[in-house]
Amino acid sequence: MPATFRHAYDVTVRFAETDAQGIAHHAAYVVWLEVARVAYLAEHAGGYRSLQERGLEALTTAVHLDYHLPASFDDTLTIRLRCVDVRGARFRYEYRIEREGALVAEGYTGHATVNRETHAPTRVPPWFADAIATAESPGPS
Amino acid sequence: MPATFRHAYDVTVRFAETDAQGIAHHAAYVVWLEVARVAYLAEHAGGYRSLQERGLEALTTAVHLDYHLPASFDDTLTIRLRCVDVRGARFRYEYRIEREGALVAEGYTGHATVNRETHAPTRVPPWFADAIATAESPGPS
Amino acid sequence: MPATFRHAYDVTVRFAETDAQGIAHHAAYVVWLEVARVAYLAEHAGGYRSLQERGLEALTTAVHLDYHLPASFDDTLTIRLRCVDVRGARFRYEYRIEREGALVAEGYTGHATVNRETHAPTRVPPWFADAIATAESPGPS
Amino acid sequence: MPATFRHAYDVTVRFAETDAQGIAHHAAYVVWLEVARVAYLAEHAGGYRSLQERGLEALTTAVHLDYHLPASFDDTLTIRLRCVDVRGARFRYEYRIEREGALVAEGYTGHATVNRETHAPTRVPPWFADAIATAESPGPS
Repeated sequence: MPATFRHAYDVTVRFAETDAQGIAHHAAYVVWLEVARVAYLAEHAGGYRSLQERGLEALTTAVHLDYHLPASFDDTLTIRLRCVDVRGARFRYEYRIEREGALVAEGYTGHATVNRETHAPTRVPPWFADAIATAESPGPS
Repeated sequence: MPATFRHAYDVTVRFAETDAQGIAHHAAYVVWLEVARVAYLAEHAGGYRSLQERGLEALTTAVHLDYHLPASFDDTLTIRLRCVDVRGARFRYEYRIEREGALVAEGYTGHATVNRETHAPTRVPPWFADAIATAESPGPS
Repeated sequence: MPATFRHAYDVTVRFAETDAQGIAHHAAYVVWLEVARVAYLAEHAGGYRSLQERGLEALTTAVHLDYHLPASFDDTLTIRLRCVDVRGARFRYEYRIEREGALVAEGYTGHATVNRETHAPTRVPPWFADAIATAESPGPS
Repeated sequence: MPATFRHAYDVTVRFAETDAQGIAHHAAYVVWLEVARVAYLAEHAGGYRSLQERGLEALTTAVHLDYHLPASFDDTLTIRLRCVDVRGARFRYEYRIEREGALVAEGYTGHATVNRETHAPTRVPPWFADAIATAESPGPS
């Protein structure tokens, strides 16, 4: 497992993502993790559409989030992430959500690649696994 | 155009639908209108799936909402609606959103029936138009 | 920890909660868990507003979900839940989401009670802990 | 009323914003308009927080959207907007949502400034009206 987070994307808390506690609603974080994954795949693996064009979908099989600090409207949050444990039809992401260096939340998501039509589990394609390995390798990315 | 609202469905404001102003976010109302349309179609026209099973989708072509009173977490709101102006490939709904008789919001949505695969405009099927006419007729429904 | 789920609430998948994979988006489940908690508190502990009226908020400190089966538009899902591990300023819920008896997802959420103004951790009030204990006791509820 | 749109902000369609029709859900557009307003205020009027710090909130009193073309996952959309009709406690925005020059949707929103505590209508502050007038004036902005 990589020891560090080599990649990060920013999101800004939308007003629609706040709730009557005056903070970002905890479900919004789940969407931000997805936004970061989409940006990561765009940068490193030809984008999510490159999976879809090969007849694949990546389903989300697990979500875990620990919330440490509340986030507020208009905060800019940095979503650090790494893709780990690519094996068979499964892969995983780990995340740290930070605001100016402070840890706001952390977590992970699990994913399974499936055939787009049948939803049958389908091995992660080699080109995808290779792209992830390159993205997570310690050399210049 | 029918003079009255013969049909109504309730929604309760979810905490996730509130915002940092302490009230229901204005985009949530757009979702509630859809929830009411789905319930209306289930009751009167075999459900939205009956359109899909015939290869149709109903796209939303317009949304209009006037907000009169804020709604709060856990408020139960009554969505009154009527389907009007069914013609060609188009139909319209009108709405009143009430809380214990007080007008919270009102508006309308426009819809177009299209072929599910090609998104080409497709006339509203006669059975659908008939079901709407029956639902909106002044007799016992 | 209670061995069974004594309480359950239903949600129906909204069209707005589906995504381009044709299934309910995984973030929607997080909202449904909250809808179930709100209904649970309304039934057993005077409602979430009874916490707020005493100057408290219950923050969500953790979310975990394992997704087993996709859910589709208009599916009615049963959210089974139990409140466990009430101690100090913390409590936890566990969940099973079912569709006609089949396990769609399962998970848990963690919560902390805080002062509404200062967000300082505040012990769960005795009346609240008692209400939970009664709700989760094996007698007739 | 200004004849042209002098300001624009981009949004990228999130996967969570798509629906089972395979396109962006129509309620997501309402959120994007808000994202554009927030960016506009940040650029031209000290940000939405400058209103809040003076004890004001801007409520949304109306939303209108006409949808012309579907938008898809990962599309980058340009939200063109202008603030018009600032008078008393009210102001309005008009919008064009474009994708590579093609008109995807257009609409307007109405807003009222209110006292943050009492929600009583409160005149738009002169500094705010001046900032809008400057932002919408034909000189270099």
